[in-house]
Amino acid sequence: MVSGRLEALGDGIFSVAMTILAIELVLPVVNGNKWIDFMHAMSQSWSGLLCYMISFIVLGIMWFGHRMMFEYIGKTNRYFIFLGVLFYMMVCLVPFSTRFLANNTLHWFAILVYGLNLSLCNLTLYCQWLYGTSRLHMLHREIPADVKKEAHIQFLLSPVVYAIAVGISFFYPIASIVIFIITPIVYLLPSKLDKYLP
Amino acid sequence: MVSGRLEALGDGIFSVAMTILAIELVLPVVNGNKWIDFMHAMSQSWSGLLCYMISFIVLGIMWFGHRMMFEYIGKTNRYFIFLGVLFYMMVCLVPFSTRFLANNTLHWFAILVYGLNLSLCNLTLYCQWLYGTSRLHMLHREIPADVKKEAHIQFLLSPVVYAIAVGISFFYPIASIVIFIITPIVYLLPSKLDKYLP
Amino acid sequence: MVSGRLEALGDGIFSVAMTILAIELVLPVVNGNKWIDFMHAMSQSWSGLLCYMISFIVLGIMWFGHRMMFEYIGKTNRYFIFLGVLFYMMVCLVPFSTRFLANNTLHWFAILVYGLNLSLCNLTLYCQWLYGTSRLHMLHREIPADVKKEAHIQFLLSPVVYAIAVGISFFYPIASIVIFIITPIVYLLPSKLDKYLP
Amino acid sequence: MVSGRLEALGDGIFSVAMTILAIELVLPVVNGNKWIDFMHAMSQSWSGLLCYMISFIVLGIMWFGHRMMFEYIGKTNRYFIFLGVLFYMMVCLVPFSTRFLANNTLHWFAILVYGLNLSLCNLTLYCQWLYGTSRLHMLHREIPADVKKEAHIQFLLSPVVYAIAVGISFFYPIASIVIFIITPIVYLLPSKLDKYLP
Repeated sequence: MVSGRLEALGDGIFSVAMTILAIELVLPVVNGNKWIDFMHAMSQSWSGLLCYMISFIVLGIMWFGHRMMFEYIGKTNRYFIFLGVLFYMMVCLVPFSTRFLANNTLHWFAILVYGLNLSLCNLTLYCQWLYGTSRLHMLHREIPADVKKEAHIQFLLSPVVYAIAVGISFFYPIASIVIFIITPIVYLLPSKLDKYLP
Repeated sequence: MVSGRLEALGDGIFSVAMTILAIELVLPVVNGNKWIDFMHAMSQSWSGLLCYMISFIVLGIMWFGHRMMFEYIGKTNRYFIFLGVLFYMMVCLVPFSTRFLANNTLHWFAILVYGLNLSLCNLTLYCQWLYGTSRLHMLHREIPADVKKEAHIQFLLSPVVYAIAVGISFFYPIASIVIFIITPIVYLLPSKLDKYLP
Repeated sequence: MVSGRLEALGDGIFSVAMTILAIELVLPVVNGNKWIDFMHAMSQSWSGLLCYMISFIVLGIMWFGHRMMFEYIGKTNRYFIFLGVLFYMMVCLVPFSTRFLANNTLHWFAILVYGLNLSLCNLTLYCQWLYGTSRLHMLHREIPADVKKEAHIQFLLSPVVYAIAVGISFFYPIASIVIFIITPIVYLLPSKLDKYLP
Repeated sequence: MVSGRLEALGDGIFSVAMTILAIELVLPVVNGNKWIDFMHAMSQSWSGLLCYMISFIVLGIMWFGHRMMFEYIGKTNRYFIFLGVLFYMMVCLVPFSTRFLANNTLHWFAILVYGLNLSLCNLTLYCQWLYGTSRLHMLHREIPADVKKEAHIQFLLSPVVYAIAVGISFFYPIASIVIFIITPIVYLLPSKLDKYLP
């Protein structure tokens, strides 16, 4: 079975999950009409906006990874689709864990839930990638050895980094948030994978 | 009329319904900063998360069945589309009945509503399948006799099993929940239908 | 410009609007574990479920009409797209007016808002149809005279019927709800338009 | 990499964002059954409905601009996609800032947030356009000099106008709202860009 419909489902899920991140932002309540009243209301909303931006970019990066996967994999089967459903199950939880982090920004348990959620997204996509790339008849383009090696690093980098962030959160929760901000930026840098794509 | 647009509508509805399952999760409220406080808050959320996971996988399986149907059926007409709308009407109720089950997990009436909703999803899709496969000009590939036979079983298995779950729920509601957990796993096992797909 | 992207936007908007109808259903609260408690809770929810079903089928029919339009129209331009945006603006209000009707089922003002919303959906789509079919270079198939005539009737039938329903609502609001239930069924009947479609 | 999947993600995000505008409308509460009671309830909802209509049309125009961009740009790369994610991040905030404006219609701070949000949508799309059009291998059609010139004006017009609206809001907030209503209409007028499209 060709992968077109699964990609369409995935694009749909990503677009809904990304848009839903914004519904869950709590509206700031401004008491008064002065600059200071507005600033005070906004200062209550900063953590929601920050978490929104981090999660939106992280989901954008995951969508990009998911999209790149289908540059190599062109066929699906029952197991590949169910690994995909597991991945989407984790992706759809991101608005939930983002809201949890926004409400409890500097608490270890929110950092734990958020880090765990993002790591499980990466790991389920990694399983799908490993399954798909090990079945030659599902590929529509050969995968260069370099891409395979780099992909392992890209898939495992963020779970490792997020595990460190969770560990640090018991002592310096602000450092964990900084790690959540920096990690997506690392993924935005040029990558060896790019030159293999048409 | 070719079926492409109806498939696109279906993919859209499934992706929204799946994502919405997660919006309706109630955020755990953690009072305190200790492990025990977090565990206590999570213990209140277990039923929501469990129902989320069951429903997500069930919707994934239904999407898969719906997608497989269009491997055989390539044309649509007025009646086929309206049977599809009925199916989507049942699918869109799944987030509602999931929320109802999450709030009343061990009550017979929530198990009744949830089991009824999932059964109606299967039965409306079954009607669409029966209608579509009985009109030869709507097929773009012949349906092997084996696939027809196996499809009957697959469509009717879960309504029967869910009826049993509802019956049991008056005495042992936990057993009904276990049935809801196990049934999707049965659908994930290899099936005779697979070998007929390209 | 080919119409593919506009159709994709439309399919997305319809699938979200249809799914959202179900989010807005209020969860019944069952006090007790007896059949009578469940029935009592459900009796409070009947209007929500009824309005959900009516609106879902009406949106399904509108999607079908919108889809049939693109069997004839294959090109778009600035004005055609903006008429489409107006139509989508009315479609996206359907979950809102459905919720309003569910909360005030037998009140003339809810019937007025709901009937007005559905009529405006039909009328904006009619404008788009009139604009598109009057520009020959936008068609990719000639429109038979019969289809043109029948289309006028189909587009104008429901605004007229809904105007009657609104008029009746001041005296017999139940009759208006019955009209809302029957009208979609009329659209499900075989139509002269069908034989012209491939 | 061809741009099809990015366009699908964009269409999904726009359709969800547009539909969500309507979820956030507060249901009017009518106390009584007289015309005056209904009018009174509606008069409380006018700002919500007005903001809904403005934002829906603005998003429709942005979708149109985004769609036109892909008439020229047919390939994507890592940076183009991430500029796209930034644009979508701003688009998804529109329901949020619309709700904020609906709740605080005549307050400078709501006009500031709304104007800033819409301007950032335009500016991020402008960045994506500038990036894409400066890489010749990403184009699948040459861009006429006239289109390039006109595009600069169209992208920068609304940020400039919205900056003026924000400036005025400290003295005559009603004038700012009028500007928000008029600006989309300007974009609906025929444009030099149209004649270059097939």
